[in-house]
Amino acid sequence: MSPTLQDIVSSLQRSGTFVNSLIAALTICGQQLFSSFTFSCPCQVGKNFYYGSAFLVIPALILLIAGYALRSQVWSISSEYCCSCAPRHRRVTPLERRLACLRFLGITGRALVAPLTWLAVTLLTGTYYECAASEFVSVDQYPMFSNVTDSKREEILAGFPCYKEAPSDVDPVREEVALLHRYQSQMLGWILITLTTIIVLVSSCLARCCSPLTSLQHHYWTNHLRNERELFEQAAEEHSRILIRQRIKKLFGFFPGSTDVKHIRIPSCQDW
Amino acid sequence: MSPTLQDIVSSLQRSGTFVNSLIAALTICGQQLFSSFTFSCPCQVGKNFYYGSAFLVIPALILLIAGYALRSQVWSISSEYCCSCAPRHRRVTPLERRLACLRFLGITGRALVAPLTWLAVTLLTGTYYECAASEFVSVDQYPMFSNVTDSKREEILAGFPCYKEAPSDVDPVREEVALLHRYQSQMLGWILITLTTIIVLVSSCLARCCSPLTSLQHHYWTNHLRNERELFEQAAEEHSRILIRQRIKKLFGFFPGSTDVKHIRIPSCQDW
Amino acid sequence: MSPTLQDIVSSLQRSGTFVNSLIAALTICGQQLFSSFTFSCPCQVGKNFYYGSAFLVIPALILLIAGYALRSQVWSISSEYCCSCAPRHRRVTPLERRLACLRFLGITGRALVAPLTWLAVTLLTGTYYECAASEFVSVDQYPMFSNVTDSKREEILAGFPCYKEAPSDVDPVREEVALLHRYQSQMLGWILITLTTIIVLVSSCLARCCSPLTSLQHHYWTNHLRNERELFEQAAEEHSRILIRQRIKKLFGFFPGSTDVKHIRIPSCQDW
Repeated sequence: MSPTLQDIVSSLQRSGTFVNSLIAALTICGQQLFSSFTFSCPCQVGKNFYYGSAFLVIPALILLIAGYALRSQVWSISSEYCCSCAPRHRRVTPLERRLACLRFLGITGRALVAPLTWLAVTLLTGTYYECAASEFVSVDQYPMFSNVTDSKREEILAGFPCYKEAPSDVDPVREEVALLHRYQSQMLGWILITLTTIIVLVSSCLARCCSPLTSLQHHYWTNHLRNERELFEQAAEEHSRILIRQRIKKLFGFFPGSTDVKHIRIPSCQDW
Repeated sequence: MSPTLQDIVSSLQRSGTFVNSLIAALTICGQQLFSSFTFSCPCQVGKNFYYGSAFLVIPALILLIAGYALRSQVWSISSEYCCSCAPRHRRVTPLERRLACLRFLGITGRALVAPLTWLAVTLLTGTYYECAASEFVSVDQYPMFSNVTDSKREEILAGFPCYKEAPSDVDPVREEVALLHRYQSQMLGWILITLTTIIVLVSSCLARCCSPLTSLQHHYWTNHLRNERELFEQAAEEHSRILIRQRIKKLFGFFPGSTDVKHIRIPSCQDW
Repeated sequence: MSPTLQDIVSSLQRSGTFVNSLIAALTICGQQLFSSFTFSCPCQVGKNFYYGSAFLVIPALILLIAGYALRSQVWSISSEYCCSCAPRHRRVTPLERRLACLRFLGITGRALVAPLTWLAVTLLTGTYYECAASEFVSVDQYPMFSNVTDSKREEILAGFPCYKEAPSDVDPVREEVALLHRYQSQMLGWILITLTTIIVLVSSCLARCCSPLTSLQHHYWTNHLRNERELFEQAAEEHSRILIRQRIKKLFGFFPGSTDVKHIRIPSCQDW
């Protein structure tokens, strides 16, 4: 059974589904942990919106930037095709340009997994949205709000996400507002998820159909890129070690780690 | 005992029953977890239906799309037979076309497992349906609803799934309505399950009987496809490695991993 | 002790008793879990019967169909002997026809284990039957039902499985009806179990006695079928691998896994 399981795991790792699922799962767990430890709505007039929006948007932005920056491929592509500082030695063929676009789209897709998961989870949970939107709810239809001043009403509304003490007749209103906000937040979450799914589907269809490579060629090319990186790193490592060994040999008269040291050389001042 | 168990497990994995059961079990667990954490009916006029329907339909749609998109075979079939962007190099024989249809039907069957499980579980549980249908129940036969206005009646009906406070004579009506909705939801679930089973049975009968392949041929063909993929991947991997080794040899002057390095080459600036 | 235990287990696995017991135990556990989570009788006139019957019959039907469909032997037998779509190449001898009947009966026996277990467990538990039969009980002998209208009587009867509030003099009638239904349901369950046992005994006697094969022949024939499948799969696997190797040789210029690669070939675009 173990080779079959290993095959499944390795093919999952290769196909990218596994990595994407792992990123999404980590984001979901991180969001739940983070939110339970740090989030507490200020419940003061004029602050709820900024606080809730910050928790909603800023982590998503940071995850997006991190998703781009952590992929080393981005840097190699950008230095290959976009930097005009380095002198150009070889012509870039149209096929190479299209392949670079394809790789860039793939990286964008991978980088968007975490922020979109963050947004979807926070919207489906609804706590951040509830805090951010608490001041903007309209309560004109409730009779108990008709004889309070505007500032007092704003204060009561801002206190809704905290279960602050309030006139006892406001309690059912708070519950209705909480359900309304949860409804809005989760519907927004569903809309986001649906749109994302449709866009992913259409774009991957287009990328596959109008790609310059057939399915088998794409498979070969992906493997080729991975192998090229691996073997190049291995060869560069060895090349660098051999070069340094030769230089050290010249300087000290023996290889580091060699067992039979015939004679050693005391380097002169010019050698350093 | 262990070899027999291994045989059973491997034959299960090959036949697809195991994978389908795993998908269905994961969907059931996921639905129960998801529903207990996020679902709370808004209980406000005009919102219940959209909220309940969104929770009922959108996850099923997303599971369907994901089920298609995660199968790499879909892409290879679609790029082989459907894409008109790529130039056509070889004629597709009628037998190949029918085999592609057969494979596509198999993938559709696999992709439908998760969404149909989602729909069946949610309908048999009944919570989502209860929320979505709460506003459309007819209560004309109950005497306590005859002397309330239409808007008030709608409000009471929308509040049924939340156990909101209401006039005390409405409580037995709420219980009857809850039982009625649960009955409708579960009967819909049973109808869905029965129809699905019949369709699966009939279509697999037809696929087997009118297939261009006999049972043994089908078995051979399935194995052939798997072997083709495996061996092609192996050959492509080796081909790619040999190609890269030759390039590295040209650049650095030695193969990576070779033990007897005669001389190395320091690459010039043009080589990079 | 361990080899003896292994022998017992392996002989159990071969004889089918082990698998049948496993299926029955899984069905019993599944029924109890499923029923405790989802079943709640609607208790409304005209709905109880359909609800109870659906829970009683549909799962049994689905288990029966699944039991047939999951056995790959069914498909090979049906495509060999029943399909008229495929052209007939060889005559089927009467002996072959009788052997196919024997195999089909064996598969039917295995497929009937789960649905019969489901029916027996639900009838012995009695909840589903109580719901389905609640409207059809005759209560003419009770004096308190003589002065209520027919529609009211139907409503009271339909409410019996739910312990709805009712006139207090109906309570003892409800208890008597519940005992009566439980009696009927459990007697039906016992009759089903007894009939099944007798049919299994008689049919296995007949199958052994009137079989065209003696006991030794039957043993030989079972082994022959298993060996045929195994050897055929082995040969098909080898044939397929050789075919694919030749194609890959044409594309890449070398066999995968060969040690002495003279020269490789870079495939042109037309090859893919």
